[in-house]
Amino acid sequence: MTESRAYHSPRRRQEAANTRRAVLDAALRLFADRGYDRVTVAEIASRAGVATKTVYASVGGKPDLLKEVISAAVDESRGQGTADLVRACDDPRRIVELIAEGTRGDNEQHRDLLAVTHAAMSAHQEEAAALWERTTSLYRALLAETAERLDGLGALPEDLSVEEASQILWFCFGIPAWRTAVHDFGLDWDAAQRWLLRRALALLLR
Amino acid sequence: MTESRAYHSPRRRQEAANTRRAVLDAALRLFADRGYDRVTVAEIASRAGVATKTVYASVGGKPDLLKEVISAAVDESRGQGTADLVRACDDPRRIVELIAEGTRGDNEQHRDLLAVTHAAMSAHQEEAAALWERTTSLYRALLAETAERLDGLGALPEDLSVEEASQILWFCFGIPAWRTAVHDFGLDWDAAQRWLLRRALALLLR
Repeated sequence: MTESRAYHSPRRRQEAANTRRAVLDAALRLFADRGYDRVTVAEIASRAGVATKTVYASVGGKPDLLKEVISAAVDESRGQGTADLVRACDDPRRIVELIAEGTRGDNEQHRDLLAVTHAAMSAHQEEAAALWERTTSLYRALLAETAERLDGLGALPEDLSVEEASQILWFCFGIPAWRTAVHDFGLDWDAAQRWLLRRALALLLR
Repeated sequence: MTESRAYHSPRRRQEAANTRRAVLDAALRLFADRGYDRVTVAEIASRAGVATKTVYASVGGKPDLLKEVISAAVDESRGQGTADLVRACDDPRRIVELIAEGTRGDNEQHRDLLAVTHAAMSAHQEEAAALWERTTSLYRALLAETAERLDGLGALPEDLSVEEASQILWFCFGIPAWRTAVHDFGLDWDAAQRWLLRRALALLLR
């Protein structure tokens, strides 16, 4: 009874949230540095400065840790904010620029997590494909809505369908595109944004 | 002495080559199905129908198996043939088509291996990054030479450098581009080739 009351105190709740945060930070850092398969729960506990059983109690096992790390990133994505800006904008060129800025922010901020998720998916499809789907579905929805908006403004070339425009937006601003510009071309994020924006404008607008 | 002479007989040499081939095939199949980290040498041996020690004797441990599987794929790549066709062609549009055809062939044929290598690289950079470098260096060299050739024919827009044209060729026909078109868009290989070719022509030629 005393235990239970103590657990529901604001201080205890704050401590539990801090522990959870430390565990998730440690998991992301270790997954990114060494790969999901090569990290143990005990190592994550050690890095977070807690007991192994605390990791299981506060988040769960390794698959739960990966899921929760991704959920946190999806929750703090700027996708919704970008969607609002696109809806309020009437200038097709500016709309494409907004997508370049919005997707750059998320790709730059979450680059480690995206690499971890993608590697986990490639290595064992069944478990991680659904996570990747969750990571990309809001992203793809934003791009599909943007293609509709550009079409509504009469900005797309006549021989380009809305679906193809949506594919071009993913081709130019999707996760693989940012990786290609930053990793394969060695560009910094500003230069990558200019590079991809230039291609998108050439492919998308009349 | 008898052992040694027997080992150097043509029949023994053929058997050794067959065993090696069976081991490499089994390794690729298991790496692709379950991910490099989740496969043991004993499982590869079992799948190839040989003893575990035969795997070590004929190829080596897991890192050697991955390296040899990639080497075999690089050796049978059509990159060199495509380079010869590009050198012999004077029509810029046809040159871009040749790159589309050549890179499609390698990406389609080696799609499992590319996924395995990429996942291995993402998960533990130090070991596999050099392998990825080896896999892509001939590929990137072909695209750089093609950009030079298009420039020599006066086919590039005036504001496009040869380096940027080379980046555009990787953006449109590199390993991530084919994966995006086939996996993310769900296109078959013919449709993917048409999709990517259309974008490359729009971005590259005057």
